[in-house]
Amino acid sequence: MSREQREAIRRLRASSPLDLGGAVHEQRILFEQLLAHHPVPDDVIVTEVRYDTVTGLLVELAEEPGVGTVLYFHGGAYVLGSARSSLGIVADLARRSRTRVSTIDYRLAPEHPAPAAIDDAVRAYRGLIASGVDPQQVVVAGESAGGGVALGLLAALSSSGEPMPAAALLFSPWVDLTLSGDSMTARAEADFIVSRTALERRVRDYVGDTSTSERHSPLFADLRGLPATLIQVGSDEVLLDDSTRLAARLVAADVSVTLDVTAQATHVFQAFAASWDEADAAMTRAATFVHTALKP
Amino acid sequence: MSREQREAIRRLRASSPLDLGGAVHEQRILFEQLLAHHPVPDDVIVTEVRYDTVTGLLVELAEEPGVGTVLYFHGGAYVLGSARSSLGIVADLARRSRTRVSTIDYRLAPEHPAPAAIDDAVRAYRGLIASGVDPQQVVVAGESAGGGVALGLLAALSSSGEPMPAAALLFSPWVDLTLSGDSMTARAEADFIVSRTALERRVRDYVGDTSTSERHSPLFADLRGLPATLIQVGSDEVLLDDSTRLAARLVAADVSVTLDVTAQATHVFQAFAASWDEADAAMTRAATFVHTALKP
Repeated sequence: MSREQREAIRRLRASSPLDLGGAVHEQRILFEQLLAHHPVPDDVIVTEVRYDTVTGLLVELAEEPGVGTVLYFHGGAYVLGSARSSLGIVADLARRSRTRVSTIDYRLAPEHPAPAAIDDAVRAYRGLIASGVDPQQVVVAGESAGGGVALGLLAALSSSGEPMPAAALLFSPWVDLTLSGDSMTARAEADFIVSRTALERRVRDYVGDTSTSERHSPLFADLRGLPATLIQVGSDEVLLDDSTRLAARLVAADVSVTLDVTAQATHVFQAFAASWDEADAAMTRAATFVHTALKP
Repeated sequence: MSREQREAIRRLRASSPLDLGGAVHEQRILFEQLLAHHPVPDDVIVTEVRYDTVTGLLVELAEEPGVGTVLYFHGGAYVLGSARSSLGIVADLARRSRTRVSTIDYRLAPEHPAPAAIDDAVRAYRGLIASGVDPQQVVVAGESAGGGVALGLLAALSSSGEPMPAAALLFSPWVDLTLSGDSMTARAEADFIVSRTALERRVRDYVGDTSTSERHSPLFADLRGLPATLIQVGSDEVLLDDSTRLAARLVAADVSVTLDVTAQATHVFQAFAASWDEADAAMTRAATFVHTALKP
């Protein structure tokens, strides 16, 4: 069953016209169209939200206020995607964890290169806290490049000594802009969504001068003082080693970390929780992690 | 709160007369006495069990039959411990996961060197399956050296092509008898329970000729085909890198694996779930993993 589900999703994604390394303006339209396929369920309410200069979408359960807030950063290689494109996975996370989720429209490259995305993330977090939310009732989360934004936010908070959120949740995070993980080649054949070539183009868009790639990579930041972190990743990802090395760095920094690797799963496979048992199970673990971290 | 709890446990364990590297016969008595402190709760029933030539203790919930079976291997550096000494943690796991747990008295070194422990584990597993239990309703588990026994069992099943259990659960597993992890020195000061000196003595007891240490280390076995594995470990352990390297090896072997590292936790800290919040949380995650793996 699970193998058939996986193959069906593989075929679906492999036939996608999306090209992560393609021309930004075309790919933005495709990305929004593809992700609009994930319907937003009836039992959540979506409203616009603003923190300082940063806007986003707030997803709340219609029936109950929920416990705490997840501050979420969408994926899209720093150049694509939006709060709206993340609504499918965000609504699923909100429902399963019984938590409100605020998904942020951080500025995108190439129009707004690094560190604009991180600056917006910090602004959104500070705005959320300034609105009276207890940091210990916040989980910072993100997928793919949004995982990098989330980690960059946490490193910035650690560096400035600001109060940390209760926990961090990262789906297939892209945290190394130098693309130096072994999986970048070792998993190239298995990964039909992300490729080194595509990422190289997006790195240039995001950091401009690639001699600054390492400096803009949250993987290499000082990670001491970060909150408990759950990292989920598939083994069929060129970004696999971003997760395994991040886990090792967090362990070395004495941070409680869970590295949760699903065999033969692809980039941000949790988006397919409705049609693949392993993705459903991973999403349940993620929601349990959020819910447990926010327990009053 | 959690820091005070941790320090209290640290003082308790640091003042323990147990010396993992001490004379086997003395330490066996101490080990049993210390672990007898963990009372077996009223709501579980303990009975003797036998699989072929191997005996153990079966822990069942008094009120309900429970789902599936955990086949458990106690710790004690391959020379100490018993099914009885594991009853505290095993009863806790049984209650939280609503599962029966069969904890095995595998043969100990130096009287019975490698691979006697693994042979007994294989015999126990085969006996359990022969009694009519569906392998997919079994989770193999172990702590410390017992984690090595559990992993050795799984590698043996993989090698012989026998049906795998549904999942594996390892608490602070000792899987590298060559003691080559960086944490063996990097975490030496933080770890007041296990030391390289003690382990070196126990390796000689267990493998005899230390030129065979690598061959008897399940870390270096062929791990392809293993079931989904949850590894829990503390960051204050000389055995930390046994877990991180095992996770990396399982990822490389395309096995679904979760590496769950609790910062500033010590060897098999889950035994202190009753008095330390982080240990309680880890035990809850372990029980959820077992329960989910055995869901009918």
